[in-house]
Amino acid sequence: MKSEIIAVGSEMLTPFRQDTNSLYLTEKLNELGVTVAFKTIVGDRRKDLVNAITSALGRADIVAIMGGLGPTEDDLTREAVAETLSLALHRNAAQVAALAARAATWRVPMPSNNLKQADVLDGAILLPNPNGSAPGQWLDLTWQDYRKLLMLLPGPPNECRPLFDAECLPRLREILPPRHIAKRVLRAAMIPESQADKLLAPIYTEYKDVETTILAKAGDIQLTLLCSKSNATNAQKRVDELADRMEEALEDWLYSSNNESLEQIVLYYLELSQSTLAVAESCTGGMIAERITSVPGSSRSFLGGAVVYSNELKTAFAGVPPNLITECGAVSKEVAEALAFGIRRYTGATLGLGVTGIAGPTGGTELKPVGLVHIALSDAKKTDSIERTFRGDRQRIREWTTQQALDLIRRRLR
Amino acid sequence: MKSEIIAVGSEMLTPFRQDTNSLYLTEKLNELGVTVAFKTIVGDRRKDLVNAITSALGRADIVAIMGGLGPTEDDLTREAVAETLSLALHRNAAQVAALAARAATWRVPMPSNNLKQADVLDGAILLPNPNGSAPGQWLDLTWQDYRKLLMLLPGPPNECRPLFDAECLPRLREILPPRHIAKRVLRAAMIPESQADKLLAPIYTEYKDVETTILAKAGDIQLTLLCSKSNATNAQKRVDELADRMEEALEDWLYSSNNESLEQIVLYYLELSQSTLAVAESCTGGMIAERITSVPGSSRSFLGGAVVYSNELKTAFAGVPPNLITECGAVSKEVAEALAFGIRRYTGATLGLGVTGIAGPTGGTELKPVGLVHIALSDAKKTDSIERTFRGDRQRIREWTTQQALDLIRRRLR
Repeated sequence: MKSEIIAVGSEMLTPFRQDTNSLYLTEKLNELGVTVAFKTIVGDRRKDLVNAITSALGRADIVAIMGGLGPTEDDLTREAVAETLSLALHRNAAQVAALAARAATWRVPMPSNNLKQADVLDGAILLPNPNGSAPGQWLDLTWQDYRKLLMLLPGPPNECRPLFDAECLPRLREILPPRHIAKRVLRAAMIPESQADKLLAPIYTEYKDVETTILAKAGDIQLTLLCSKSNATNAQKRVDELADRMEEALEDWLYSSNNESLEQIVLYYLELSQSTLAVAESCTGGMIAERITSVPGSSRSFLGGAVVYSNELKTAFAGVPPNLITECGAVSKEVAEALAFGIRRYTGATLGLGVTGIAGPTGGTELKPVGLVHIALSDAKKTDSIERTFRGDRQRIREWTTQQALDLIRRRLR
Repeated sequence: MKSEIIAVGSEMLTPFRQDTNSLYLTEKLNELGVTVAFKTIVGDRRKDLVNAITSALGRADIVAIMGGLGPTEDDLTREAVAETLSLALHRNAAQVAALAARAATWRVPMPSNNLKQADVLDGAILLPNPNGSAPGQWLDLTWQDYRKLLMLLPGPPNECRPLFDAECLPRLREILPPRHIAKRVLRAAMIPESQADKLLAPIYTEYKDVETTILAKAGDIQLTLLCSKSNATNAQKRVDELADRMEEALEDWLYSSNNESLEQIVLYYLELSQSTLAVAESCTGGMIAERITSVPGSSRSFLGGAVVYSNELKTAFAGVPPNLITECGAVSKEVAEALAFGIRRYTGATLGLGVTGIAGPTGGTELKPVGLVHIALSDAKKTDSIERTFRGDRQRIREWTTQQALDLIRRRLR
């Protein structure tokens, strides 16, 4: 079963607002085994609404329309559905009474345009809305083997979500065959997206019944495996089997089998090995510490660190010899290693991380271009480092560097 | 001119991800006088893609498709556009060479599936993508008085946005009639949203020809004023007049009249007063340093700082007396002030900032609940601090604290 969610409201076509109800509905629909194949956002223009509803009915079995059920002139969802399906609207007497009663409790005279909220599509069931004045509508369009389900839901999240749960979910459950969705999320670090796909495509394409989604961020790949079956055990078995094979193919790029973040995994390994970590960051400027400390309980293994933006602080907080900076430059293998060694010694941590680089947009030279970073790790036995050149703007170079640094720690501890 | 934005990617049809590029594109298109009439989100299924593209071309003059241009089997935008318009794809030799050169700098052999990124729609112009491997494409479909513009853009925001700015905006400007949009963005810190609206609504409702949007984030209010007129001077005059009145009403909550970020303003004041800053962060764990160093050139005024997660580091990096921590607790006015004073003394900065608090979710007590923070500032003349209790989850408490800390510096320097 395919569904489409239509969010109605011109404010969601500005640069400032986004629909969020659809995320909620998607989760609920997925749990019923219903895929969301399309989401459409459309403004408060009747012609556009008719167009969107027509498209949706042409390509989806279940259509949820959110918004445009209020009393104002801009609220046109009822009228647009009526036009699209050539259905009449009739004014529901009980609903008129309910609106009048509601206005009475607010002690305001009811504006006459409020009455349009009592207009019901022929054949539709009114869905009571305890949190607002506009009821929802449920329309089951069945002609022989053609069947479309249409839901009209109010736009405000505090009305839309409870109404969907109370009125639509039970009706959908009654109609739909029982489905069970199994899910796994794998994550891998620092593998190029194309390389990951080359490794994995031959595997996941064998599993037509599992939907695999690859999501890539700076140095991070997230693989979501979803399988929907009438039998829960079978669905889980398929997902787990595919996950196992993918994990094997990803080798040590894989860092999580259950969607933990890289910083969670690093902290997990630190705890497991009873190690502690301290960091000395130059170009990342606190981003590594920020990611680690975003995890609750990180204080158990993370001592802290230094943001050594100036050369003087590289010396003061991590004991980097000033002449080393003069001779090799602040962005050098030597200074990165001195930072890692120094921060470990100064803090008494088991592991010290040192990062220096050129985040740009200025400060690059031919020999040391923007994006060049040195990342060093120091423990009781050794201090060594890697060199990378990352592309992109300042933000992106800092994100890639942070990811690479965390991955370096993971690989050392594993 | 009506436009439609199509975001391609099955991950955006899950409960976990939302398209954000469309907000950016909407802003840019609006500035050109182009309305966004529809947004569609569609998964990585060719049939669905063809359907979405067909619908879009039927109802919009300008169609921007974002995503699905990468090298994986899931990336089907090129193929779907070709199918929709019955256009052939040809492999572009120069682009093949560019992909090979790119793979070479990464020192990895180029997977053969990478080559599909060199496939160009007949009649399309390739749009170079300096931040990724997949180029964009620009297709101007003109038959007599029928004209549709189709843009294929990469999905990752750091590729999509610069590519759109560099390649699509100038082309659109050439085609579209000139429009004059005046815009101002004001920003204010730490004023509650309801209070801001109470202050400002009586003013901005007087200006029916200026569209005012209020956007609130953790401790940050952004006010966007937009006015479109046939005459540029008149549009600017209205926006400036409204902006002046709002600035006056916002008093010293206002920190920027031109959409600078709070960290930019802090750095601006630091430079102006030839001051330097160092920070000692506990609960924010590097977030303050990260925000400051996200600004290019921040090294001129920001020396760096310490992430003093453990009590030992509070002493080692900022000279907080151990008995002060024992007596007052790590989260206390006294420790915050000692951090600010100490980090200033240790680093030689003009200004020292100290932050300590309980970000949660655990660690709170009745006397010191989750969300309690102390933020201290020290200069040559004095060291003082403020106490706040922020609500929300760990992330939100850290964001509010960071914003409050930056605002404290701004108010001291102003």
